[in-house]
Amino acid sequence: MIQAAETLLRESGLAGAGIKQLVARSGAPVGSVYHFFPGGKTQIVTETLRLHSGKAVKLFAHAFGDAAVPLPARLRALFRKAAAAFEAAGADKSCAVACVTLDLRASDDALRQVCHASFSQWVDEIASHLPWPDVDTRRSFAMMIVLTLEGAFILARAEQRGNAFTTAGDWLARLAQSTLPVLTGESDAPARTALRRSPHRRRRSGPRTRKA
Amino acid sequence: MIQAAETLLRESGLAGAGIKQLVARSGAPVGSVYHFFPGGKTQIVTETLRLHSGKAVKLFAHAFGDAAVPLPARLRALFRKAAAAFEAAGADKSCAVACVTLDLRASDDALRQVCHASFSQWVDEIASHLPWPDVDTRRSFAMMIVLTLEGAFILARAEQRGNAFTTAGDWLARLAQSTLPVLTGESDAPARTALRRSPHRRRRSGPRTRKA
Repeated sequence: MIQAAETLLRESGLAGAGIKQLVARSGAPVGSVYHFFPGGKTQIVTETLRLHSGKAVKLFAHAFGDAAVPLPARLRALFRKAAAAFEAAGADKSCAVACVTLDLRASDDALRQVCHASFSQWVDEIASHLPWPDVDTRRSFAMMIVLTLEGAFILARAEQRGNAFTTAGDWLARLAQSTLPVLTGESDAPARTALRRSPHRRRRSGPRTRKA
Repeated sequence: MIQAAETLLRESGLAGAGIKQLVARSGAPVGSVYHFFPGGKTQIVTETLRLHSGKAVKLFAHAFGDAAVPLPARLRALFRKAAAAFEAAGADKSCAVACVTLDLRASDDALRQVCHASFSQWVDEIASHLPWPDVDTRRSFAMMIVLTLEGAFILARAEQRGNAFTTAGDWLARLAQSTLPVLTGESDAPARTALRRSPHRRRRSGPRTRKA
């Protein structure tokens, strides 16, 4: 039933994931929905988002966990994989957390907190694998990765192909390339070369240190 | 009535913009909704998205139209403005086109095309102001800007503050800075200096020319 709810949320957000649609999609009798989820739709959506979020954490751990692969290559691979998965799934499913986030009403504060907790969990997971020495830059870049991925889902969905993911992944890889630190174990020779050419960059840890 | 529909779409997407909610929000009698919009909800949503999209085009023309301002500064200003506007509007409204896109069902193909047309229009508008000499890189970077903005809306909405916009704008500015071309009128002295240090970059026009 949770699996049916996840698919419905990924397709049409809260609008598509009512008890009626869930019963139709899962084949479960309506009585069993209220038996297992006495909290109704809010409980179903909350548990589904937590499950979906946990899957994403594993996906990010896998995508960023191998420090031997240069970060730009890890980024390109993640976004290419996302493009392929999006198209393979029919080009009509997005991230369940994003779909719900953009359907929230003021009265849905409990669900909003579930969405916010998911994004924070993803940022933490990705940040833990990034090469910058200071935690603020790691978290800031991790946030950029998550929001870029979410934005790509939107444009890809409207276009019904994965092009937005590969475009985003290529630009993010380039951004990582141009800002990688030298003081870590990051095995990225071209970035190190570029940094040697621009020695002032050694003292910079991220865009938060730049002045507008 | 279109204004009420726009607010409803920005808050909760298709889920929140039914005829019933529209009547409640706009104060218009239900008969007048069907009088002015015989096509019902699909017609209302289509016309509202076109209006919303046109406003965004003007906003992008204004944000990117002044070529005398370095591109990184234009990017930071746009995203800072978005953060401030998002918070000023109550931190509960996103982009109407994105909200609708993530609510689409397979049967909503006409609306999907409206959403896709909006994003394409924005990409074209932004691309027309970017400094790269080749159109593919301009369009690719413009797409990155649009999807980053959309992704920032999602994380900001979940967090209920504009931090995701400023983070995204700072990284995009940095990306522009590191990849700006030298052959245009772009008045960006630091970028030119960096490019003189890395002469091989002169031949690069964007990440699409890179090999994974």
